Amino acid sequence: MKAAQFFAKEDIRVTDVPKPEPKDNEVLIDIEWCGICGSDLHEYIMGPMAIPSAKPHPLTNEVLPITMGHEFCGRVVSAPPNSTLKPGQAVMVDPRLYCSSCTRCSSQATNTCYSWGFHGLSGNGGGFSESITVDASMCYALPDSSLDLAALIEPLAVAWHAVRGSGKDDFSSESVLILGGGPVGIAVLLVLRAKGAKQVFVSEPTVKRAKQNAKLADAVFDPIKEKVAEKCLEKTGGEGVGYVFDCAGIQAGMNEGMAALRHQGVYVNVAGWEKPIVVPQLDLMFKEIMVRGSLAYDDRDFRETVEAFVDGKFKGVETMVTSRIHLDDVPEKGFAELIKNKDDHIKILVTPNRNNLSKKE
Amino acid sequence: MKAAQFFAKEDIRVTDVPKPEPKDNEVLIDIEWCGICGSDLHEYIMGPMAIPSAKPHPLTNEVLPITMGHEFCGRVVSAPPNSTLKPGQAVMVDPRLYCSSCTRCSSQATNTCYSWGFHGLSGNGGGFSESITVDASMCYALPDSSLDLAALIEPLAVAWHAVRGSGKDDFSSESVLILGGGPVGIAVLLVLRAKGAKQVFVSEPTVKRAKQNAKLADAVFDPIKEKVAEKCLEKTGGEGVGYVFDCAGIQAGMNEGMAALRHQGVYVNVAGWEKPIVVPQLDLMFKEIMVRGSLAYDDRDFRETVEAFVDGKFKGVETMVTSRIHLDDVPEKGFAELIKNKDDHIKILVTPNRNNLSKKE
Repeated sequence: MKAAQFFAKEDIRVTDVPKPEPKDNEVLIDIEWCGICGSDLHEYIMGPMAIPSAKPHPLTNEVLPITMGHEFCGRVVSAPPNSTLKPGQAVMVDPRLYCSSCTRCSSQATNTCYSWGFHGLSGNGGGFSESITVDASMCYALPDSSLDLAALIEPLAVAWHAVRGSGKDDFSSESVLILGGGPVGIAVLLVLRAKGAKQVFVSEPTVKRAKQNAKLADAVFDPIKEKVAEKCLEKTGGEGVGYVFDCAGIQAGMNEGMAALRHQGVYVNVAGWEKPIVVPQLDLMFKEIMVRGSLAYDDRDFRETVEAFVDGKFKGVETMVTSRIHLDDVPEKGFAELIKNKDDHIKILVTPNRNNLSKKE
Repeated sequence: MKAAQFFAKEDIRVTDVPKPEPKDNEVLIDIEWCGICGSDLHEYIMGPMAIPSAKPHPLTNEVLPITMGHEFCGRVVSAPPNSTLKPGQAVMVDPRLYCSSCTRCSSQATNTCYSWGFHGLSGNGGGFSESITVDASMCYALPDSSLDLAALIEPLAVAWHAVRGSGKDDFSSESVLILGGGPVGIAVLLVLRAKGAKQVFVSEPTVKRAKQNAKLADAVFDPIKEKVAEKCLEKTGGEGVGYVFDCAGIQAGMNEGMAALRHQGVYVNVAGWEKPIVVPQLDLMFKEIMVRGSLAYDDRDFRETVEAFVDGKFKGVETMVTSRIHLDDVPEKGFAELIKNKDDHIKILVTPNRNNLSKKE
């Protein structure tokens, strides 16, 4: 079968690989859609980092070439006899790999398992292919009609975890600033809207992303032309926003975000940083700010995100998708396009099935 | 009367100032002891910073020269008629000035009042003098016998607030690392001991401070010679400590502290930073650490610290005191000594009353 595999930095190729055989506990799935993630792009530009090269991944025993893609949904081809899943069932997959036995897994923090991995980054197949086998416990049944957008559940789960990690659940009287309106930023925006946030502002410098975010946010500020912190203070009676979600990971963003926060505000970092970032001390100290790191999602986050998705809580979720392409085109219309025209995109979805594309035309 | 006043950077003089006259709401207090704080020293070395120079302080309308000293206790000379305080009563003073009307004061966050100030930094007299007038509501009655050490309640309240700000109250199954065994560090250690912490480690490079901390801590590590994070991991079954209190404010400390934390550990910063500090990203992200700023203390912290002090909860609190001097000697045996022989001291206490010194000899 076809699969887009990572061979080396800037070297992704669509190749022929053996079709996977399900083990006793596994579901065989034909993939319908799989999103290209920012972390896929980081691997492509700077990797291999998370992708195992010299040392095999402890849970898959694999090294590159690795089939990429971890934001995928599909249809069941076969399932274990004791599973409620039947052939043809639409499913979303929690693509994580974890050991289930380390101290972190034992305390439900499976997102930070000492041996953490992902289908699509660590081995055991990936979403940029025709089929994949995954543990039945990681499959979530979906209504048939949702497959077009269901791959977005994965980045939404990242956002769900970040929002939950803020320690707040009821945002109905809260003002929030999101730094960066890319895939994670807009996913945080969708989760906050699902949780009824009072005011959500986004700081985003590029035209296309700003336009997409403006459909869902109360205001989108251009950090190149506007003083984002001042704008937030203006819109909150001089007090500042209660929460900042950093989905940008740059110094200028953190400076504005920390300045935009009110006393005892919460700053959640969901971004990877390409350069070291200095914490603005005076804000941290005089406003007693809490800065929190957030990584991926755990079982509960994924389950709750699927439920919210199926319940139609993510109004405007289609705003995230800026392009749909065929598996054959992953290297050029996927990765190369995201580098060349990064600012024109939020999420590119990939399908191995040409019928899915013609349906969308 | 005599008072040690800040005139300019590196210029503190004992001068003659008018004895204060109490207003209707004020208690007149003869000062017994007042500690020299790290922030006093920062003003002396790098100031004026918090001390008003060009622009008068909004709550006192004063500019320098300012009588210094904000960690003071004493005896009541006179009190408002409706006060329960009588002449001769031993008292500790919460030295803060706040407006009581801004949005932060209105939400009990008086420690971050938009117009915050202190007796001893912002005007309205200070503890390095013979007498002071303070609002009756800021005075806490003490047993007579406690006056020798009561001035330490102020730095203990800073530590109390920091520990409360960690979000944890029961430390009986927690391991904690304190970065820096100076006055704030050892105060945090005393508060954690009062709260029954299971294991407390201190990172402190100087001999005298290490020796004093070793009387109260489970272990004191020398960060110059030892790998502090590795030591903490060894002593916690490889998981790391749950809480770090940064009372040092330097990059090397934060690097070790973040590395020493377990998954979802909490890092409370109580220190001022002289240089910018980069947050170790991988620890923040992969361990989902929470970094929290802590500033001073509020009404509840001060009241609870006084109660714990009076109840004898701070066992070994005398360990904080490394020297006692007369008011006349504040410039030389106080500030100059703390610069010249910083590593030999934790807290220097000052008295305007020579009898207090001869009692201690």
